[in-house]
Amino acid sequence: MKKLNYGMVGGGAGSFIGQAHRRAIRIDDLAQLTAGCFSRSAEISRKTGTELGVADDRCYASFQEMAAAEAAREDGIDFVVITTPNVSHYPACKAFLEAGIPVSCEKPLCLTLEQALELQALARQKDLPFMVAYTYMGHVTAKHIRRYIQGGNLGKIRMVMAEYPQGWLAHEDDWGGKQGQWRCDPSQAGKVNCLGDLGTHIENAVSMMTGLKIRRVLARLEHQVPNRVLDDNDVVLLEYEGGATGCYWASQVAIGHDNDLRVRIFGENGTIEWRQETSEQVLVTTRDGIRTDLHRGDAGILPGAAKYGRLPSGHTEGWLESMANLYRSFCQCLNAKKEGIFVPEMIDYPTVDDGVEGVRFVEACLASSEAGGIWVDL
Amino acid sequence: MKKLNYGMVGGGAGSFIGQAHRRAIRIDDLAQLTAGCFSRSAEISRKTGTELGVADDRCYASFQEMAAAEAAREDGIDFVVITTPNVSHYPACKAFLEAGIPVSCEKPLCLTLEQALELQALARQKDLPFMVAYTYMGHVTAKHIRRYIQGGNLGKIRMVMAEYPQGWLAHEDDWGGKQGQWRCDPSQAGKVNCLGDLGTHIENAVSMMTGLKIRRVLARLEHQVPNRVLDDNDVVLLEYEGGATGCYWASQVAIGHDNDLRVRIFGENGTIEWRQETSEQVLVTTRDGIRTDLHRGDAGILPGAAKYGRLPSGHTEGWLESMANLYRSFCQCLNAKKEGIFVPEMIDYPTVDDGVEGVRFVEACLASSEAGGIWVDL
Amino acid sequence: MKKLNYGMVGGGAGSFIGQAHRRAIRIDDLAQLTAGCFSRSAEISRKTGTELGVADDRCYASFQEMAAAEAAREDGIDFVVITTPNVSHYPACKAFLEAGIPVSCEKPLCLTLEQALELQALARQKDLPFMVAYTYMGHVTAKHIRRYIQGGNLGKIRMVMAEYPQGWLAHEDDWGGKQGQWRCDPSQAGKVNCLGDLGTHIENAVSMMTGLKIRRVLARLEHQVPNRVLDDNDVVLLEYEGGATGCYWASQVAIGHDNDLRVRIFGENGTIEWRQETSEQVLVTTRDGIRTDLHRGDAGILPGAAKYGRLPSGHTEGWLESMANLYRSFCQCLNAKKEGIFVPEMIDYPTVDDGVEGVRFVEACLASSEAGGIWVDL
Amino acid sequence: MKKLNYGMVGGGAGSFIGQAHRRAIRIDDLAQLTAGCFSRSAEISRKTGTELGVADDRCYASFQEMAAAEAAREDGIDFVVITTPNVSHYPACKAFLEAGIPVSCEKPLCLTLEQALELQALARQKDLPFMVAYTYMGHVTAKHIRRYIQGGNLGKIRMVMAEYPQGWLAHEDDWGGKQGQWRCDPSQAGKVNCLGDLGTHIENAVSMMTGLKIRRVLARLEHQVPNRVLDDNDVVLLEYEGGATGCYWASQVAIGHDNDLRVRIFGENGTIEWRQETSEQVLVTTRDGIRTDLHRGDAGILPGAAKYGRLPSGHTEGWLESMANLYRSFCQCLNAKKEGIFVPEMIDYPTVDDGVEGVRFVEACLASSEAGGIWVDL
Repeated sequence: MKKLNYGMVGGGAGSFIGQAHRRAIRIDDLAQLTAGCFSRSAEISRKTGTELGVADDRCYASFQEMAAAEAAREDGIDFVVITTPNVSHYPACKAFLEAGIPVSCEKPLCLTLEQALELQALARQKDLPFMVAYTYMGHVTAKHIRRYIQGGNLGKIRMVMAEYPQGWLAHEDDWGGKQGQWRCDPSQAGKVNCLGDLGTHIENAVSMMTGLKIRRVLARLEHQVPNRVLDDNDVVLLEYEGGATGCYWASQVAIGHDNDLRVRIFGENGTIEWRQETSEQVLVTTRDGIRTDLHRGDAGILPGAAKYGRLPSGHTEGWLESMANLYRSFCQCLNAKKEGIFVPEMIDYPTVDDGVEGVRFVEACLASSEAGGIWVDL
Repeated sequence: MKKLNYGMVGGGAGSFIGQAHRRAIRIDDLAQLTAGCFSRSAEISRKTGTELGVADDRCYASFQEMAAAEAAREDGIDFVVITTPNVSHYPACKAFLEAGIPVSCEKPLCLTLEQALELQALARQKDLPFMVAYTYMGHVTAKHIRRYIQGGNLGKIRMVMAEYPQGWLAHEDDWGGKQGQWRCDPSQAGKVNCLGDLGTHIENAVSMMTGLKIRRVLARLEHQVPNRVLDDNDVVLLEYEGGATGCYWASQVAIGHDNDLRVRIFGENGTIEWRQETSEQVLVTTRDGIRTDLHRGDAGILPGAAKYGRLPSGHTEGWLESMANLYRSFCQCLNAKKEGIFVPEMIDYPTVDDGVEGVRFVEACLASSEAGGIWVDL
Repeated sequence: MKKLNYGMVGGGAGSFIGQAHRRAIRIDDLAQLTAGCFSRSAEISRKTGTELGVADDRCYASFQEMAAAEAAREDGIDFVVITTPNVSHYPACKAFLEAGIPVSCEKPLCLTLEQALELQALARQKDLPFMVAYTYMGHVTAKHIRRYIQGGNLGKIRMVMAEYPQGWLAHEDDWGGKQGQWRCDPSQAGKVNCLGDLGTHIENAVSMMTGLKIRRVLARLEHQVPNRVLDDNDVVLLEYEGGATGCYWASQVAIGHDNDLRVRIFGENGTIEWRQETSEQVLVTTRDGIRTDLHRGDAGILPGAAKYGRLPSGHTEGWLESMANLYRSFCQCLNAKKEGIFVPEMIDYPTVDDGVEGVRFVEACLASSEAGGIWVDL
Repeated sequence: MKKLNYGMVGGGAGSFIGQAHRRAIRIDDLAQLTAGCFSRSAEISRKTGTELGVADDRCYASFQEMAAAEAAREDGIDFVVITTPNVSHYPACKAFLEAGIPVSCEKPLCLTLEQALELQALARQKDLPFMVAYTYMGHVTAKHIRRYIQGGNLGKIRMVMAEYPQGWLAHEDDWGGKQGQWRCDPSQAGKVNCLGDLGTHIENAVSMMTGLKIRRVLARLEHQVPNRVLDDNDVVLLEYEGGATGCYWASQVAIGHDNDLRVRIFGENGTIEWRQETSEQVLVTTRDGIRTDLHRGDAGILPGAAKYGRLPSGHTEGWLESMANLYRSFCQCLNAKKEGIFVPEMIDYPTVDDGVEGVRFVEACLASSEAGGIWVDL
C-alpha cells in the first residue's frame, strides 16, 4: 500500500487526542504527517510542526489557509485530521471538503444537525471519503460483534442497555485540566458536554453493532456538579424501529469509572456483552444458556474482524490499535480511490453518515430534556 | 433466645419460596414450624404438613380457619409466614393481623396501595411486627452499605443506577414452569409481573441502602415476549427528594443473567457498587480514586452488619443466610416483645412500611407507563 | 426419609466448625442433635447441651462415656460428628466405631498413617459408614466436575495446578485467636499445621475430581512467620500414576487471600478451573478453545450433581449448603442401611478411605521436606 | 530528542516479533528503520527492506556483513534489533558489539551461560548499551511495582508465586505454525523451549519487580505432548537470598490460557498481584487487609512509572506500548550518550545483565531437572 501524506488541524501542545491520532497512524506506517495547523499562532504552529518533522512552509496559522495551500500543491496532503474542540469541526471540515481534501474528524461531527447535513451533502457531492473518529468501533471485538449480529445470530433484538460512565469530572474544583475546561465551556463544546462527548459514542456503538435505527428518544440531561452549565450525567430511553427498546447512560461524574463504555445487546436468541476497557473479549450467551468468553485472537472471531488483529491473543491490544484500525481501512479506501479500484464495501470505518446520526441524536435528546422529558422523534 | 413457633401459608409441593423460608429459618433454629395451610385441599395440606412434622390438627385448608384456630390456642404460633402467589397476600396478611398474629410476608406486599395502607394501619393499630421478605437486604454487605451511607461516607448522593436482570422467562414456550406461570397470569400476579417481582426488590434495595425518598418516576413497562400479557422488561427513571436521580432496569428476558440484582450508588465523595450474585463483597471507590474491594468478613465491615456473619471470609454465605438474617432480627424482636424489652431500634428487617413503599412505587410506575411515559409523583 | 439422631464431640463455645456442622445439618432437617460431649468439663458440656436442646442425661464429659452410653440406649444416636482439634480425632473415632456407631469426622482424619489405617480397618470390619468432612466436595460444581471428568471429557489429564492460600495467620502477633492457637500448637495439631489443614483439602479435591492416584511427592514445608514451629506455607510437586504431574500450594500467610481453594485441571482435550470462593461457577475450555462459564443451576450441570441444588442459579449457595450436601448423602446411606437397601454406589461423600489418603499424603510430604526436598513414594 | 536510526536482524515475512518491534518503535517515532538483514537470501532481504522503506544498499544477506558495513558508514545505524530464533542471538549480538553498535536483542539472550557472560563482558568493555527485550517489564504497572517494592512497602518478601501458562502448543498436530516449529526444534531453540521462551520472562519479571536474587532452584522440565523433544511444561521451586521462597510454572499446553504471565508477591506487610493480560491494573492488599485495585492512570501510580503512560486510564494500553516503553528509555540513553549526559540511573529497560541472569536460570533449571529434581545453586 502506498504511503499517504496527511495534515492535522489542532493537536498542539497539551492536546491529548491529536497526539493519539498521530501515534495510531504511525503503528501501521500508512501515512506521514506533512502539514498542519497546530495553533492559531503562526509561531506556535511552526514550532509544533518542527518538533513533529513538518516542513516550515507547511505549518499554517489557519485551517482556511492550509486547505487552500495544500489543495494547490501537487504533493498536497491526501487527507486531513481534525482534532480541535467541537466548535471548530464544522468550519474546518467544510474548508477541506471544499478544497477537495478527504477528512478524518473527531466526534461529535459538529454542533447542529443543519451543519452535519451540509457536511454530508458536501462530502457526497465532492465524492470525498470522510471518517468520523468513533475510535471504539475499531476494536477487533467491536467489528466481530457487528458481523455476528448482521449474521442473525441473536435473532430479533429486544433491548439494548448501554452506558459510558467516567469519573474524572466529578469535582467542582480543578479536575479535568485543559481537557475538562473546553468540554464544560459552551463556547467551545456547544450546547452539550457529556452527551456529545460520551453519549454519541454510545449511540454510534449501538448503531454500528446492531444496525438498529432510533425511532424516538426521551432524555434527561443533568448537571450534577454545582456551578456547571453543561450536562455531566445523562440518561436516555430509546425506541428503535422494529420494536426494540434501549436505555443509554453517560456520565462524567461517576467516581470509580475510568472510560467504561459498555454495551449489552439482548436478542431473542442470545445476548452479547462488550466492554471497551476489556475489549480483548466478548461475552456471548446463547438461547440455551451457554455462556462463552471469546478472546480477540480466538478461532471464533469472524474473519472480517480477525484480520485487524496484530498480535496473538493475550498480547493485549488497546485503544491505539483500535484507532489504527480505523485508519487502516480509511487509508485503504483512499489508496483504492487513487487506483480506481474503490467500491463502497471497502468502507470499514465510521463515516460522515455516522457523524450525522450522532448529531441528530444529540439534538433530539436536547429537545426532549429541555421539554422536561418527552418522547421526541428522530 | 426462646425458640418460637411459626405457621406457614403456601409453601406446598412445587413451591420454591416456601421451602426456602423454612430452610432459612432452620439455620439458626430460632423457630419451629408447627402449623400450616399448605394447600386449599385439606388432604394435600395435611399430607404436606405430615412430611414437615406438623401435627394433623394444625394443618388447615384455609388461612382464615388457621388464623382463627391458632389465635385461639394457648400454644398458638408466634408468627405466620405467607408465601403464596401475590393475589393472596392481602387477605392472608389481614386475617392474621386481625387475629393478632405477627406476619412475615413475601413481596410484593399486595396488589394495590389501598390494600397496603390498610395492612400498614392494621399492623400499627394492633402493634404487631410485620416483616416483608425483601431477602437481599439480609446480606451482611447490604447491611454494611446501609450503615456506611448513613454515616455520611458518600456525601450527597448524586445518582443511583440499579438493575435486576434475569433471563429465565426469555422464551415464549414452556420455560419457567409453575413459577413462571403464575407470575405471568394477571389473576395470580396482579397488574404487573416483572415490576412486582424484581422492580420492587430494586426499589427496596436502593431505599434501604441510601435512605433516598422517591419524588417521582417515569416508567416504561414492556412485554418483549410475544403473547405475554404482563410486563417482562421495565425501565424506570427516578427523581429523589434532594436532587439525586436514578435509573432502574428490571428484566426477565435478559438471556445470560440469572438473578443479577446490582446497585451502584454515586455520591459526591465516592461510589459504592454491590451485586447480589457476589454479595460477599462490596466495591467502594473514594473521592480520591482509591478503589477497594471489601469482603464480608473484613475488619472494615461495620459492626452492626458484621455481627450477622456466621463464617469466616471466603467460607461463602449466600441467599439462605441472607434470608436467615432477616428472620434473626425478626425473631429477636418478637422475643423482645414477649419479654417487654422491645424498642424500635431493634428492627433490622424490612417492615410493612417498606412493603407499602414497594406497592406505591409499582402503582406510580404503572400509571406512568400507561400514560405513555410521563412523570408521576409518588 | 426418616429423621436421624446424632451426637457431637467438640463444638462447644468458641468452636467455629462444630456450630457450622450443626447449621449445615439443620438445612435439610435430616437429623437432630440429641447427645453430645461438648467439653471435658461435665458442667460446661451440660450447659452447652442445654443451649442446644440436648437432654441433660445425654450431655457427656468424655467421648468414651458417650460412646458406651449411646451404644447402650435403644434410642441411641444414629451417628456421631467429631469436631475436636486434630489430636483427638483418632481416639474419638475409634471409640465410636468400636461402639458400633457411624462416624462423621473433621479432616485431617488423624495424625499418623498407622492410626488412619486402623480406623479404616475398623470401619470395614464393623461395616460402619464413615464420612470425613472435606466440605468443599459437597459443592454442586465440585460434584459436577468429578462426573464430567469421569465421563472422559478432558481426555488424558496432563497436569494439575492447585492451591489453597489463606492470609489470616500472616502475623506473629495475636491473629487467629482460638482457631489459630491450636492449629499452630504441635500438641493439638500434630506434626503439621498448614499442610494438614489446607493441604489435605487440596489433595482430596484433586483426588475426588480427577480420580488421579499420587505416585510420589516432593515437598517443601516452611514456616515463614518468626517463632512459629509448624509449617505455614507449603509447596508440593507431584507425579501421578499414568504420567500426569501436579503442583500444590497451601499457605496461611498469603495476605489478601481468604479461603481461596482453587483447582485447575489440564487435560489433552480441555481445561477445568474451579474456585471455592466462586463455587457457583465452573470454567471449562475445550480443545478447540471455546471458553465457557457454567453456573450451578445451568442445564449443562450433570444430573447427579444438579440434584443437590436447592435454589435457582443466581440465588447463591455457599459453604453451608456444601456441607449440607455431604450430610444429605451420608444420611441417605444411613437410612438405606437401616432399611436394608444400601448399595455402595449410593455413597456420595468423602469416606474414611479419602481420610486415609489425606494422612498418607501428609506423611509423605513431611518425609520429603525433612529430607531437604526429595521424591518420596506414596 | 533526536531521531535515531536502527537496523534489524530477522523480522522478515512471517515473523511475528520483528514486526512487533518495528510497530512499537514507531509509536513514539524515536527511531527509524534504515538497515536490515531480514533473510539469509540477499534477494528476500532486499525485497522485505523495500517494503519497509529501507534503501537497497542497506539490505544485507548476513549480519556479519551488515555489522561491518554499518559500522563503516558515517550515517550508520545507532542500534540494531535482533529478532531471529534463539540460536542466532549470540553470534549476531557479538558481531554488532564488536562493530561498536548498541544492541537490542530478543530473549532468551543466548543458549549458554558462557555465551551470555561473553556478551556481557563485551558490552561492558565497549561501553555499549544493550537491551534485552523482556517486553512485559515495559508496562507502566510493572514499573510501578518495581518502585513500590523498592520503597519497602511490602516489608520483607516471604514468597513469590509466578506463572506463565499458554495453551497454543497443546496439540501434537500442526498448531503453532512457524512460531511453534522453531521453538520445538533444538537446532533453533537450544536445549529448552518453554523454559527459555516463558520461564525466562517469569524469572525476569520477579527479579525486576522484587530485586530478589535466586540462591538455588529445583526444577522439573516436562514434555507433555507426545513426540515432542523439548520441554512444554515446567515447574521450578526457588530459594532466594534472604529466606524468601518461590514457585514458577511455565506451560505451553495449558488449554484456556493465552499469554497469562501472572506474578504474586507476598510480603510480611502486604501482597501484590499483577497479570500481564490485565496489565492496566495492580491489585494490592496491605497488612491490615485493605484490598485495592490500582489502575494505570491513577494518582497512586508512582511518578517514575506513571510518566510512561500515553493515554488516560481506561483508554487501554497494551503489549505494543509496553515494548515502546522499553525503547523509549533505550533511545533516551543512546541520545544521552551521544550528548555526553548519560548516567546509569537513566537505564529503565532490561539490560544484558538481566539477559545473563535469564540464561543462568535456564542452565541451573536444566541441570536440576536432568538430575531428577535436585537443588542446584545459581
